[in-house]
Amino acid sequence: MSNIQSYIKENQTRFLDELFGFLRIPSISPEPKHKKDMLSAAEYVRKAILQAGADHAGIVSTDGNPVVYGEKTIRKDKPTILIYGHYDVMPAEPLDLWKSPPFEPEIRDGRIYARGANDDKGQLYMHVKAFEYLVRSRALQCNVRFLIEGEEETGSESLKKFCIQNKEMLSADIILVSDTSMLDEDTPSITVGLRGICYFEVKVSGPNRELHSGLYGGAVVNPANALARIITRLTDEQYRINIPGFYDDVMEIPQSERNEMKKTPFKLEEFKESIGITGTAGEKGYTTLERLGIRPSLDVNGIWGGYTGEGTKTIIPADAYAKISTRLVPNQDPEKIRVLFENYLAQIAPEGVHVTVKYLHGGPGYMAPVNSDAYRAASMAYEKVFRKKPLPVRSGGSIPIIAEFEKILGLKSILMGFGLESDAIHSPNENFRLNVFFKGIETISHFYGFYCA
Amino acid sequence: MSNIQSYIKENQTRFLDELFGFLRIPSISPEPKHKKDMLSAAEYVRKAILQAGADHAGIVSTDGNPVVYGEKTIRKDKPTILIYGHYDVMPAEPLDLWKSPPFEPEIRDGRIYARGANDDKGQLYMHVKAFEYLVRSRALQCNVRFLIEGEEETGSESLKKFCIQNKEMLSADIILVSDTSMLDEDTPSITVGLRGICYFEVKVSGPNRELHSGLYGGAVVNPANALARIITRLTDEQYRINIPGFYDDVMEIPQSERNEMKKTPFKLEEFKESIGITGTAGEKGYTTLERLGIRPSLDVNGIWGGYTGEGTKTIIPADAYAKISTRLVPNQDPEKIRVLFENYLAQIAPEGVHVTVKYLHGGPGYMAPVNSDAYRAASMAYEKVFRKKPLPVRSGGSIPIIAEFEKILGLKSILMGFGLESDAIHSPNENFRLNVFFKGIETISHFYGFYCA
Repeated sequence: MSNIQSYIKENQTRFLDELFGFLRIPSISPEPKHKKDMLSAAEYVRKAILQAGADHAGIVSTDGNPVVYGEKTIRKDKPTILIYGHYDVMPAEPLDLWKSPPFEPEIRDGRIYARGANDDKGQLYMHVKAFEYLVRSRALQCNVRFLIEGEEETGSESLKKFCIQNKEMLSADIILVSDTSMLDEDTPSITVGLRGICYFEVKVSGPNRELHSGLYGGAVVNPANALARIITRLTDEQYRINIPGFYDDVMEIPQSERNEMKKTPFKLEEFKESIGITGTAGEKGYTTLERLGIRPSLDVNGIWGGYTGEGTKTIIPADAYAKISTRLVPNQDPEKIRVLFENYLAQIAPEGVHVTVKYLHGGPGYMAPVNSDAYRAASMAYEKVFRKKPLPVRSGGSIPIIAEFEKILGLKSILMGFGLESDAIHSPNENFRLNVFFKGIETISHFYGFYCA
Repeated sequence: MSNIQSYIKENQTRFLDELFGFLRIPSISPEPKHKKDMLSAAEYVRKAILQAGADHAGIVSTDGNPVVYGEKTIRKDKPTILIYGHYDVMPAEPLDLWKSPPFEPEIRDGRIYARGANDDKGQLYMHVKAFEYLVRSRALQCNVRFLIEGEEETGSESLKKFCIQNKEMLSADIILVSDTSMLDEDTPSITVGLRGICYFEVKVSGPNRELHSGLYGGAVVNPANALARIITRLTDEQYRINIPGFYDDVMEIPQSERNEMKKTPFKLEEFKESIGITGTAGEKGYTTLERLGIRPSLDVNGIWGGYTGEGTKTIIPADAYAKISTRLVPNQDPEKIRVLFENYLAQIAPEGVHVTVKYLHGGPGYMAPVNSDAYRAASMAYEKVFRKKPLPVRSGGSIPIIAEFEKILGLKSILMGFGLESDAIHSPNENFRLNVFFKGIETISHFYGFYCA
């Protein structure tokens, strides 16, 4: 047993106790009523970093949720690793689908069940514990900075400003992030691409009040029917996006790289089965993995309007709403996409209703090289623990701040994710495998070893 | 001042007190939690009929909400009028748009504000008070039966069964109903046509849980996008219904009758302004009044799915739902339309999702002659009170039981409505004009006079 393995074994119940305390805080950033919980979660992280061995750690107020910053400096001429993570989580609704309450963590069948168990409290905490081991075992050979935010799930606006204002303090050699996934439990992977995002709320306003559908139906434009028509016009039958100019800046991936991607182990039947669908669909000419990794997408994230209670109510709704987001790929610019989206909606808005678009947040996509020192160190660290060389993958998800880090700080990020598809992040019964949690701590500590050697 | 006018003046505060007690009961039939309130409302009506002078009045249990039946027999050889009305009301949501609570009736600017003020508690109560006057002044020259139900807003299923089981008891010469509208405050009208209805709930089921829209977006069929496509395919751009066979049995109205309809006073600009819309739309080749009166329509009454809270949640919904209803005209058969709708949805359901249709309720349209004794009596009664001959109109609304009365009991109905467009039935701030309430009592008492003379 290696030193780090022994350390984890000796301290595992304490590690879980600490993580569970963190998971109990309902730090749901999209819901303003959790303002206080955001501060509690930030304070929890600050203390954890300090107790793990940081020279100092503090909470910085922002216009939004606070940023936690901590650091340990060994020697100025040593490399510096900047750890990024987030303490905010997604809303837990629908609550009735959770087998145990989302903010009362519970271990079942070797998994920790809680909102944030993986995304990102669990993954973030692995870094705090790997750092603790390195400090306590006097094996730390580089400087470390922690930069932990509370708005990742809502667009990282405050952290972006914080980075602009603190460029000097945040100077580093590499940013290390665990907020992504592995291909499966036995197949580690390093994420070398992320999609960007543009998130909108569309409101279709019709009559000045709900109308009786008998007395008005047939002569008045129904906002819900109109909204359906608008959504339908956003994509073609294969879900290729109809917005003029939308694909103009999409980076076309060379056939050679697409051939490489085909080597990724992926079983379509297992994919379908795991999420309970009978068929996939998407842009013509691309495989499922390509549709998820190298092509943009458009999804309705929520829709509502009119009577949604039990039974029947014979009305024409006064308004109808949809939350609609598109995932972007390099080199699509969210600001440009925002304008294209808004213009297209103005153009296709049916007569007789009024359509307004609210831009909620956005960020560009990201790409990382596979031939960097950091990539090699990460690859060796995974191989040592998982006994398998990790595969480079392009993820369909978005971490908008990763592209901003490159733009503002000039720093690349190395995305060492430990999530699994079955972790159900953003869904009811989010969970994180116990053995992955411990293996992650081990892998991260080896990354330090290889990178700083 | 006539006798009836004096009687109303002397008793007006008592009439309002009694009506307000009725309006305070939240007898919302579409919401099962109001089961007890349905019984309270039925009991309130039973007592009111009895106190107004019925020989007897009772409550009959059904599989659904109870039916109230009461009668007064003068002499077997006299004509019999069957009064139909309903004590159930629509849900009051959205509650925040009400200026005073929906079940705390309030008089403002000469109007009674409450859910049910017009539909149908207010209109029903006018009949109870007109009957009271006729009994107390010994002017009643016919037999009267009251048939009051609690499921009008949900399809009248229990009353239908009640009619089948009690044909004999319900024998009468005419059914008198106040559950429709006047053209405006100075223009009385008699409704000679009603649309039918078919009401469905459509569910689109996708993945077995909410999915992360980044990790899955672009390769998985989104149930909300799929639902939008389904709704869009139900009608063409002018909202003509695309369901094959849907128009097969639609009664085409002769040009001569359409020319008559054009004489109805109707100002398009005022219509648009009253409901705050910038433009109307509907089936090509028909005027707004025709679209509302003689043509079928299709409306989304409610739609929901995915994340509908504040801010952003980046998910693909597991399911999406819509309540969708169509208004039918003679001679469309709701059972046939139900099958056509279900078949069409099965046909257009996108691959990769599962579509289910629940039929919630339905009923056929109705037509009444303008040359009957009852029509003439109603016409004279209106003319006496409003000093204007009422116009025959076809209403876009549905009272499914009216067509059933004809089918089951062989009886025509005379629809003496006193509602106004500004009464906002089914909407927040439903109200009923005080002076219309009193004029209605007067008009109804004159109907008895002319019909039984």
